[in-house]
Amino acid sequence: MSLVSALSTADAAFVAVESEAESLLPAARRGEFDAALALRHAGPRRVKLRYEVVGDLSQPVVFVAGGISARRHVTANSADPSRGWWDTQVGTDRAIDPTARCIVSFDWIGADGALDAPIDPADQADAIVALLDHLRIRRLHAFVGSSYGAMVGLQLAAKHPSRVQRLVAISGVHRAHPYSSAWRALQRRAVQLGALQCDGVDGLVLARQLALLSYRTPEEFEERFGAAQVVDGRVHVPAEDYLDHAGQSYAARTPVSAFLRLSESIDLQDVAPETIVTPVTLVAIEQDRLVPLADAYALAQRLRGETRLRVLRSRYGHDAFLKEHEAIAAILDEALATEVAA
Amino acid sequence: MSLVSALSTADAAFVAVESEAESLLPAARRGEFDAALALRHAGPRRVKLRYEVVGDLSQPVVFVAGGISARRHVTANSADPSRGWWDTQVGTDRAIDPTARCIVSFDWIGADGALDAPIDPADQADAIVALLDHLRIRRLHAFVGSSYGAMVGLQLAAKHPSRVQRLVAISGVHRAHPYSSAWRALQRRAVQLGALQCDGVDGLVLARQLALLSYRTPEEFEERFGAAQVVDGRVHVPAEDYLDHAGQSYAARTPVSAFLRLSESIDLQDVAPETIVTPVTLVAIEQDRLVPLADAYALAQRLRGETRLRVLRSRYGHDAFLKEHEAIAAILDEALATEVAA
Repeated sequence: MSLVSALSTADAAFVAVESEAESLLPAARRGEFDAALALRHAGPRRVKLRYEVVGDLSQPVVFVAGGISARRHVTANSADPSRGWWDTQVGTDRAIDPTARCIVSFDWIGADGALDAPIDPADQADAIVALLDHLRIRRLHAFVGSSYGAMVGLQLAAKHPSRVQRLVAISGVHRAHPYSSAWRALQRRAVQLGALQCDGVDGLVLARQLALLSYRTPEEFEERFGAAQVVDGRVHVPAEDYLDHAGQSYAARTPVSAFLRLSESIDLQDVAPETIVTPVTLVAIEQDRLVPLADAYALAQRLRGETRLRVLRSRYGHDAFLKEHEAIAAILDEALATEVAA
Repeated sequence: MSLVSALSTADAAFVAVESEAESLLPAARRGEFDAALALRHAGPRRVKLRYEVVGDLSQPVVFVAGGISARRHVTANSADPSRGWWDTQVGTDRAIDPTARCIVSFDWIGADGALDAPIDPADQADAIVALLDHLRIRRLHAFVGSSYGAMVGLQLAAKHPSRVQRLVAISGVHRAHPYSSAWRALQRRAVQLGALQCDGVDGLVLARQLALLSYRTPEEFEERFGAAQVVDGRVHVPAEDYLDHAGQSYAARTPVSAFLRLSESIDLQDVAPETIVTPVTLVAIEQDRLVPLADAYALAQRLRGETRLRVLRSRYGHDAFLKEHEAIAAILDEALATEVAA
């Protein structure tokens, strides 16, 4: 048997397994349509909304939203068997199970790079309502948002309370902290610095690397990375290799204006918690370097509906929603099962 | 009286006051000489050492060293009446008083931009010994170092224990933390990104701005800066104005290679605390985002001489040594008065 035919046999077996797995994937459909939105800082605009629906719309609908780099593909499904960004929480026998819930998600407006204008998090909430209208969803069973998604969830509850029954807001609050805003402003400066050489990529790579530092913690870096070394007359830090890979991978898949406008959008977050009567489960991470615990406490005290605050310890800091599978799943189980008076 | 003559009168009065104040300034002299050093990573080099001596060398000598941006001019004196970087602690009736102590300081090797090679913090300790030999100082009464200066002080105590009687190490420890090293590596990337457009300044401005964020805290930014605003179609963050001013001011006075080589040098810090028998007063700041409190605890436990650890709370984080005048003065009073068996 030649090496080539051996590989072919192996490939065929692999494909068979994949097909079997795919047949077990939840049914899903993707779609897109044009919506007219009245943007708060940029006026009326037509934007393309791209969504993914996993499961049956007759089930209670859970809207899932992540950080500014998260897309509509949340979990592997029949329309797209590739891994989603939240496979750990969304899927058969996971905390958000498509056999019992319908999962709706979309690409943030601005994520395709076509909308190069200031985008308020409240504009995203309006876009979500346009999508709910399009899908004829009167009311969400729950909105589960992490990071920027949590900010937008709070806007949705404040501006469109009749459309959402409960909110889970993980690592995102009612405002951008001035220190975190400064950090993001410098990331945008890095992009501008790169743009001066007519090559946006290097600037975007550096911006993402700076962002990553804010998403993680000294505790994690302590475990993963060793001491600096002198290489060819320059000091090299082991974490640079990880940061290079992560930055380049992000820059390859992200339009520069998408990064800039969504980064800006975080800094525009400003919602009065007193206007929110929707039941909210807040999740805060003690080690989060981007969203200080004090802001989560303040938010919890100022919300007007039933409020639960869960504080986790995690060496992954702001990124705990992507890493602390069991702790997040336990919170989702409880929050999504809760019966709340309609 | 014309406006011009009024101004002249005011100027004359101002000059008179200045002259009177100058006559009260402590006597000082500045000097420079070439020293031959065996650099750990770059081999034998001749470097120019620039020093300032305030007060009388017959008094107990206190060597004062600050962060990588600090120069030899520590306090206003007869040789240079302009403000020094540590006027708050060094001066008549201050914690380090030139009527009772002789204060010695120098420009870090690498600070003039002429030495473009990897510089180990231990090399700085060797340079300090060369300066002590030049000034015929057998033994320092104390070495008081903050930030990078604290790192170099630990090297001095480890490599040249006979030259220093006691050490005060503020916000600097025996190693660079991997997370902080990653942060600095990205600052150096910003300089490289700027260099691609044949203009090192913009990159250095951004690098300094990123460094500033690590020196300060969310608590301070919360007090100083308000919410983001949309200006001309872009999101503007109030802290940007402060960061612009600070970054440009730094870049105007700092050679690019000086920043790069001294930033690298911090990441090369690696001294075994078990080799240090000198009495040490450690000062750590709970809010320091660059030097985690856990590293100060570890250092305190591993030092072999008499060790005191003082932990301060400060909204200025790593920069507390420049801002918490009274708390630092009280620690210096105690540490420098302590009688230690020679």
